[in-house]
Amino acid sequence: MNETVKKQLDHRTIREFKDERIPEETFKTLMEVVRRTPTSNGMQTCSIIRVKDNDKKASIAEICNQEYVKRTPELLIFIVDQFRNMMIAKEKGGKIENARDMDRFFQGFTDACLAAQNLVVAAESMGLGTVYFGSILNDPQKVIDIFHLPELTFPVVGLGVGYPNQEPQLKPRMDMSLRLFEDNYTVFDSYLKEIEEYDRQMTEYYDLRDANKRVDSFSDQIVAKLNNPAIKRQEILKVIKKQGFDLKI
Amino acid sequence: MNETVKKQLDHRTIREFKDERIPEETFKTLMEVVRRTPTSNGMQTCSIIRVKDNDKKASIAEICNQEYVKRTPELLIFIVDQFRNMMIAKEKGGKIENARDMDRFFQGFTDACLAAQNLVVAAESMGLGTVYFGSILNDPQKVIDIFHLPELTFPVVGLGVGYPNQEPQLKPRMDMSLRLFEDNYTVFDSYLKEIEEYDRQMTEYYDLRDANKRVDSFSDQIVAKLNNPAIKRQEILKVIKKQGFDLKI
Repeated sequence: MNETVKKQLDHRTIREFKDERIPEETFKTLMEVVRRTPTSNGMQTCSIIRVKDNDKKASIAEICNQEYVKRTPELLIFIVDQFRNMMIAKEKGGKIENARDMDRFFQGFTDACLAAQNLVVAAESMGLGTVYFGSILNDPQKVIDIFHLPELTFPVVGLGVGYPNQEPQLKPRMDMSLRLFEDNYTVFDSYLKEIEEYDRQMTEYYDLRDANKRVDSFSDQIVAKLNNPAIKRQEILKVIKKQGFDLKI
Repeated sequence: MNETVKKQLDHRTIREFKDERIPEETFKTLMEVVRRTPTSNGMQTCSIIRVKDNDKKASIAEICNQEYVKRTPELLIFIVDQFRNMMIAKEKGGKIENARDMDRFFQGFTDACLAAQNLVVAAESMGLGTVYFGSILNDPQKVIDIFHLPELTFPVVGLGVGYPNQEPQLKPRMDMSLRLFEDNYTVFDSYLKEIEEYDRQMTEYYDLRDANKRVDSFSDQIVAKLNNPAIKRQEILKVIKKQGFDLKI
């Protein structure tokens, strides 16, 4: 097994970092990796906001409801960006209304995710640790306001990067037999039976976020999450529409 | 620069593969990489359809309007999968209506993209080549029908993997100064001026898909794409709704 794959199989989320900035040269390499990431139609429709301002970091931490967001040495917000290409078409005198299409939105969303994960692999290969903040979508409108995101842009995911200051346990994951199907989607008779062993593994895993406390079984986690929906998160399409995208429904 | 990053910076899309299957052991390693990929809330809400049936491959090639899809040694369809966790919650007697929320859809979409890109990096590190097929979204309903995708699932992106049988030129990309901003989104005075050099580079790039023919400048490509919207692609939300997701708008 090569070093790249070895590192990928050893992935852990890092939530506490050393109080040490990433060298600018290293950051530039990470950005070059983003630049070379596969992109839908070659359109390069994602951008990154690098958050340096401490007040803005604190605001994001509040939205995420994760105070350690403030302490990430590098905080990056990946965004859908159809604004740039729309402006290019506009200057060329082209038709621009179709920049508002939802398939373009999803292309940008895909671009942003691919770039983020490419960066994660690069960072980890260099001894850095990373943490995704999907929780920026607890309040997408606030994120838009904080960074003055123009129309046809939208926040996708946040990412913290820095030198790890903790060594979390490898988190158990369900078996791929539940996630990989051949030619047809497979529906199982009993999912609880299929994940029985995984449920058990999960209760033996210690989450560093709450030291010394075992976590719930996977099935109990799902039940708890579905019992507690986040209202603002459910209404994400309203904000996407407000950003100028044409939902066409 | 380490080997991982070197490979990432050397990424090219491979569209023609040797007529040679990937060893099953290698495929298993790729699936293990998918399994270890970061996932929103730990919920693991993406699945993969491995397309072995040649008729199904041909149908996907038709949807994609790319005949070489048929010849990819491995064709994988990454899907949003909230069906599995909904079924787990149901068996546990939990509330399940919130499995239909759009934020859960986007979590699954993010999971699928992260897993796909993680697989791409692993594959390339092992000497394999890859090609994304975003074009499966030319007709998401047909993809759903072909693989019998149940409610609360949705196709995200296709991926072809195999041993490369071509050596494409590295494709020019726009400068990161246009895509990386500090604390606030930056709007430029003239985008055409900013991409002048990139536009020129693009016209000197040879795309292997149409050998010996130079491609358009980047700005001309955008104008052409926005002039030719794909109707079915625009209406993606209608199909997402049909799959049981609650758009809440």
